[in-house]
Amino acid sequence: MRPQFVLFGDSITQQSFGCGGWGAALADSYSRKADVLLRGYGGYNTRWALFLLHHIFPLACSKPPVAVTIFFGANDAALSGRTSERQHVPVAEYKDNLRLIARHLKECSPTTLVVLITPPPIGEEGRMEYARSVYGEKAMKVPERTNEMTGIYAKSCVEVAKEMGVPSINLWSKMQETEGWQKKFLSDGLHLTEEGNAVVYNEVVKVFNEAGLHALEMPFDFPHHSEIDGQNPEKVFRLQCS
Amino acid sequence: MRPQFVLFGDSITQQSFGCGGWGAALADSYSRKADVLLRGYGGYNTRWALFLLHHIFPLACSKPPVAVTIFFGANDAALSGRTSERQHVPVAEYKDNLRLIARHLKECSPTTLVVLITPPPIGEEGRMEYARSVYGEKAMKVPERTNEMTGIYAKSCVEVAKEMGVPSINLWSKMQETEGWQKKFLSDGLHLTEEGNAVVYNEVVKVFNEAGLHALEMPFDFPHHSEIDGQNPEKVFRLQCS
Repeated sequence: MRPQFVLFGDSITQQSFGCGGWGAALADSYSRKADVLLRGYGGYNTRWALFLLHHIFPLACSKPPVAVTIFFGANDAALSGRTSERQHVPVAEYKDNLRLIARHLKECSPTTLVVLITPPPIGEEGRMEYARSVYGEKAMKVPERTNEMTGIYAKSCVEVAKEMGVPSINLWSKMQETEGWQKKFLSDGLHLTEEGNAVVYNEVVKVFNEAGLHALEMPFDFPHHSEIDGQNPEKVFRLQCS
Repeated sequence: MRPQFVLFGDSITQQSFGCGGWGAALADSYSRKADVLLRGYGGYNTRWALFLLHHIFPLACSKPPVAVTIFFGANDAALSGRTSERQHVPVAEYKDNLRLIARHLKECSPTTLVVLITPPPIGEEGRMEYARSVYGEKAMKVPERTNEMTGIYAKSCVEVAKEMGVPSINLWSKMQETEGWQKKFLSDGLHLTEEGNAVVYNEVVKVFNEAGLHALEMPFDFPHHSEIDGQNPEKVFRLQCS
């Protein structure tokens, strides 16, 4: 009945319905207008995401989503030879995987708005602090992700988007425009604070608006209560819901 | 693919994906396990909700929701002869309408968990303050809702639930157990603060758990990332996703 927005990504998507989360804020802004479906998979990289693709977005779907955000890369960019090596995906393969995901979505429905979101920047000191808080003395002495390496993945993500003619959000660059981004936007050097979530929300809304998915201009699914005649309620429902 | 929970109600449901909202908190708790669909209609009473019933919950639905919360009454209980008269529904009709909604859902699927939620209590002073802040001198001099009258609707809601053998949440009583509930749980004497949202969330989770919908015990939709063998990722996906 309503258009669907699907948020496909890793933990930064999975956690997006927490307090102040960007996913919940989208669901709130588009309430009565679109359904926001959460398809966030903590710890996943694009290589593993490919196994889910046909399950989450079947080709023979009678009602494909109107918009999909693809938000991977934070795990792909984990450094080879460090503690999160298992999640590492080489940047060339990351680009290929993003292409496969975007192409599949366009094959499901050429009109689906596909938005690529780059990983956020890495607060390396925040990552180290986090590791110390969890592992104490046994914590890694070198970060398992660096901001520089994640920047390479972010740049690659934007390149794939350009190449495929779909919009992208360069979160890695955008966040670093604000002084103190390391603590302001990131809770542990990787995941988002409420303010970090607000940045993602604002950027996604901007892209959605530019693509004609402006919440204020989209119709309510049923009459607004102010349009209902208390004496003759069936009238407006007959007009709008038959 | 995933079980669906549908939140059907008035503005208190519609606003449940705002910051700290009970709907968003449910979506967060059940992420990767269930989809939470927002079907909140600000200003609606049960009489108007009936017009939506077959659209939102069609009888011939191949995948009916696993659980539905029905959360109306705050508008039905608006007093006749006061400023919100248009929304008023007599209590006998409110009970009939709740019966029709619950019966329809059980007809869609006898196994759907139907949860009736009573309106929250009314902070009459909060309502008056709100009216003064919006209408100034022209504000009503008598409240358009009273706590006593809303209590009658809450009692009726619980009676219908008992009669139909479905669980209910008596929010009207529950909230009044806490001193200072008027400001603590209500932002304008009617809608919920973050703490008020937390009460609803906790009560809904309690009922869901008792009905066997415990988030921690429900399966993830796809392998947890820790189960994925970095060297041989296809193995676990072949086992769980084919």
